[in-house]
Amino acid sequence: MDPQTLNNHLQAIGLEARSASRYAAKASTAEKNSALHIAATALRREKTALLAANALDVSSARSAGQDDAFLDRLTLTDASIESMAQGLEQIAELPDPIGEMTDLVRRPSGIEVGRMRVPLGVVAIIYESRPNVTADAAGLCLKSGNACILRGGSESVRSNQFIARALHEGLSGAGLPASVIQVLNVTDRTAVGLLVSMSEFVDVVVPRGGKSLIERISREARVPVLKHLHGVCHTFIDASADLDMAIKVSVNAKTQRYGTCNTMETLLVHESIASRALPLLCSIYHDKGVELRGDEAARALVPFMNPATEEDWHTEYLAPILSVRIVSSLDEAMDHIARYGSAHTDAIVTNDWANANRFLREVDSSSVMVNASTRFADGFEYGLGAEIGISTDKLHARGPVGLEGLTCQKFIVLGNGQIRGG
Amino acid sequence: MDPQTLNNHLQAIGLEARSASRYAAKASTAEKNSALHIAATALRREKTALLAANALDVSSARSAGQDDAFLDRLTLTDASIESMAQGLEQIAELPDPIGEMTDLVRRPSGIEVGRMRVPLGVVAIIYESRPNVTADAAGLCLKSGNACILRGGSESVRSNQFIARALHEGLSGAGLPASVIQVLNVTDRTAVGLLVSMSEFVDVVVPRGGKSLIERISREARVPVLKHLHGVCHTFIDASADLDMAIKVSVNAKTQRYGTCNTMETLLVHESIASRALPLLCSIYHDKGVELRGDEAARALVPFMNPATEEDWHTEYLAPILSVRIVSSLDEAMDHIARYGSAHTDAIVTNDWANANRFLREVDSSSVMVNASTRFADGFEYGLGAEIGISTDKLHARGPVGLEGLTCQKFIVLGNGQIRGG
Repeated sequence: MDPQTLNNHLQAIGLEARSASRYAAKASTAEKNSALHIAATALRREKTALLAANALDVSSARSAGQDDAFLDRLTLTDASIESMAQGLEQIAELPDPIGEMTDLVRRPSGIEVGRMRVPLGVVAIIYESRPNVTADAAGLCLKSGNACILRGGSESVRSNQFIARALHEGLSGAGLPASVIQVLNVTDRTAVGLLVSMSEFVDVVVPRGGKSLIERISREARVPVLKHLHGVCHTFIDASADLDMAIKVSVNAKTQRYGTCNTMETLLVHESIASRALPLLCSIYHDKGVELRGDEAARALVPFMNPATEEDWHTEYLAPILSVRIVSSLDEAMDHIARYGSAHTDAIVTNDWANANRFLREVDSSSVMVNASTRFADGFEYGLGAEIGISTDKLHARGPVGLEGLTCQKFIVLGNGQIRGG
Repeated sequence: MDPQTLNNHLQAIGLEARSASRYAAKASTAEKNSALHIAATALRREKTALLAANALDVSSARSAGQDDAFLDRLTLTDASIESMAQGLEQIAELPDPIGEMTDLVRRPSGIEVGRMRVPLGVVAIIYESRPNVTADAAGLCLKSGNACILRGGSESVRSNQFIARALHEGLSGAGLPASVIQVLNVTDRTAVGLLVSMSEFVDVVVPRGGKSLIERISREARVPVLKHLHGVCHTFIDASADLDMAIKVSVNAKTQRYGTCNTMETLLVHESIASRALPLLCSIYHDKGVELRGDEAARALVPFMNPATEEDWHTEYLAPILSVRIVSSLDEAMDHIARYGSAHTDAIVTNDWANANRFLREVDSSSVMVNASTRFADGFEYGLGAEIGISTDKLHARGPVGLEGLTCQKFIVLGNGQIRGG
C-alpha cells in the first residue's frame, strides 16, 4: 500500500473503532458473555480449518528462515486451540467490571458524588508471532467494554484472520457490531507507527512482545502505552531467613522457568547468612546447569562462580545465568534494587517482621513479595482471572493487568437541582 | 545558560529528586504533616518580605508589558498568602493515602495477594504566573509521598523562590531532605522541554495553565502527562425536566463564572420542552449579557439569538457566550456530546429514571451529572480536600485529581515459603 492509502485505511479503521466503542461500552454483560461463548464454539468447530491456515503461516515462516523458537510460538495445535476456546469461556465467567458504582457520598452542597467504572474506549494491541493473543486480548477487551484493534505479526496473518472470523461470529450472534474487534491484515511495518499515533481514535496501546518491539512502540506512540519493558527481578535472603525456605524459594525463582519476565536474575544474600546459604544453594544451581556470576565476597565462598561485571547487575538474562551479590544490610539490598532493578518483581526471604515491613513499603516495584517465589507475579496466580500483560509503568496500572486495567473510573454526580453558590 | 550547562544542571536536579523521592515515600504521616504546618507558619511570619519580593515580580512584569489579567494572577495579597498557609494546613488534615493495604486475599497456592498504595515518585509541575501554585502543588506532592520539581513562570521567579524557602523550612524542621521540593530558578524556556524528557528522573508531569502551555508539554513530553486540555461542557434539558430546575441549573452552569473549565458552553434542549424553556431561559441569559448562538430551531423560538456555526459547537468560550441546540431525543443529545464535547463535564436535567441512567452510563466524560450544575466539577466540591488539576485523560486519573491521583497501587505478596509448581 502507498503511504496515503495506508493512512486513509487506518483512519477509517480508527473511526470505525471509535464508533464501535460506544456500542461495546453499553453492551450488557449477557451480550458480551454470549459473544465470548459463541466465539469459543466457533473456534472448536473450525479447528481443522484453523490448523490448515496456521500450517500455511508456519511453512511461509520456515521458508523465510525463522528459527525454531519462532516457529514454536507460531504453531497452533489441538491443545492450544482448545485452550484459546477455554480462555474465552473463562473470561465470560469473570465478573463484569463495567458500570460498578462506588464511594457515593453526600456532600454539604446536597449533591451525591461517586465513581463509575467505565471502559477506556479503543485499545490497540500490537503483538508478535503468537496467534493465541488474538483471542485472549480481544476477549479481555470485549469483556471490559472496549473496542479493539489487533495487529499481530505479519507471519501469523492467516491464523489471525481465521481467529477473527470466530470472534466476529460471536459478536454477530450477540447482536454487537463487528468493528468492536478489528484485526488488521495490513502487513506494512509502517502501519504500526501510524496506528499508535492516532490519538483521536486510540485511547491506549498495549504492546506484547520482545524488548525491541516495546521500545519501538514507546518511542513512536502519541497515545498512552501500557507496557512492561523488562524484568530484572531480585530475591534478597535476609540474615534471619529460614535456610530451607531461602533455598527452596531461590531455586524456584531462578529455575522453574528461565525465559519469563518474573524469573529472578540477581540473588542478594546478607553477609551473616551467606556462608551457610550460598555454598549449598550454588551447588544446586550448578547441578541444574545455571551459570553463576558473583561479586568477590560471593566468589570467595563459591569457587566455581565467575566474576560479575557492572553490566551483569543490569541484565535480564532470560537464560540459566544468575548474578549473586553479598550485602551487609537490608538497606544495601534495597539500594541495589533501586539502582539496578527494573521495578518488576522483588522478594525478600526473612523472619524479621520489621525488615519484611520495610521491604514491602520501600521497594518501589510493581510486585513486592515476602517469603515467596518471584515466579508468582502473574495475573492467574493473583486471581485476576486473565491478564493482558504485566505493567512496570507507574501510572494507571502496575503489575499484572486484568480486566480492571482496561477500565477507568469517571465521577458521577446525582443531584436534585443543586446550583453552585459563592 | 548554554545548552550543555543547562542540561547538566537539570540532570543534577533530576538525580536529586529521584534520590529524595525514596525519603519522601517512607516519610511518616507525622513528619509530612509537621513539614506542612511549619511551612504554613513560615509563610505567615515572612508575609511582609514575601509581599516585597512579589512586588518586584509584579513591577518587572508590568514593565515587560504584561496585561492586567496577568498582573492580577501574579499579585499576592495578605489574603492570598493567608489562603496559601491555610491550604497547607488543610492538606495536613487530609488522610494520608500512602501505605494503605487493600484487597488482601489468600490464593489457592497459599500466598496472600493484595495492593499497597504508593507514591508515583517524582512529579514535575509546570505552571504559569500564579505563585500560589508553588505552595499548593508542593503540599499535595509532599503529603502523597512524592518528590517534586516545580517550574513556575519566569515572571514569578522571586515570589516562587521565597515560597520555596518557607517550604524548605518545613522540610528541614521535619527532618526531611530539602530536595523533596525543588523550585527551579532557571528561566530559559528550553528548560521545560528538557525537564519533561527526563524519563529516568521524572515519573509524571502536571502542566497547569492555558491551552498553549498544555499542548506544548503534551507534544514535548517523553514521560506521562496528567492534564486537561479544555472543557466544552454541556447541559441537556430532557423532555421530562422540571422547568424551574432546568432554568435554575442552566443559568448557574453558564453564568456563575464565565472563565472556568466547568462552565457550560453548549445548552441542548429537547424539542418537546423547548418552547416552554427556551424563551424564558434566554431572556435571563440576555439580561445577564450572555450572547446566544443557536441552530435554526432555537432561533425560531428566540428572535435575538445569533446563528451558530459548526465551529461554535467545538468552542470553549470561557466568556459570556452560549451555543444552543434543539434535539429530538436523548440519543441525539448524547451523539452531539460524543462528537463535540471534550469529555470534561456534562449534565442532564430530567425526571426520567431510565434516561438519567442511560446518560450516566453512556456519556463518556470525566464527570457526568444528573440534575446539578456543571460548576460542581471541582476537587473541593467533590470532597477530595484539594486538587492538583482536573484530568480529561482516560488513563490513571479522570476528573478532579487530589492526593489519590498522585499515587498508584503496587501488588504485595505475603507468603511463607511458597514456590510455583507446574
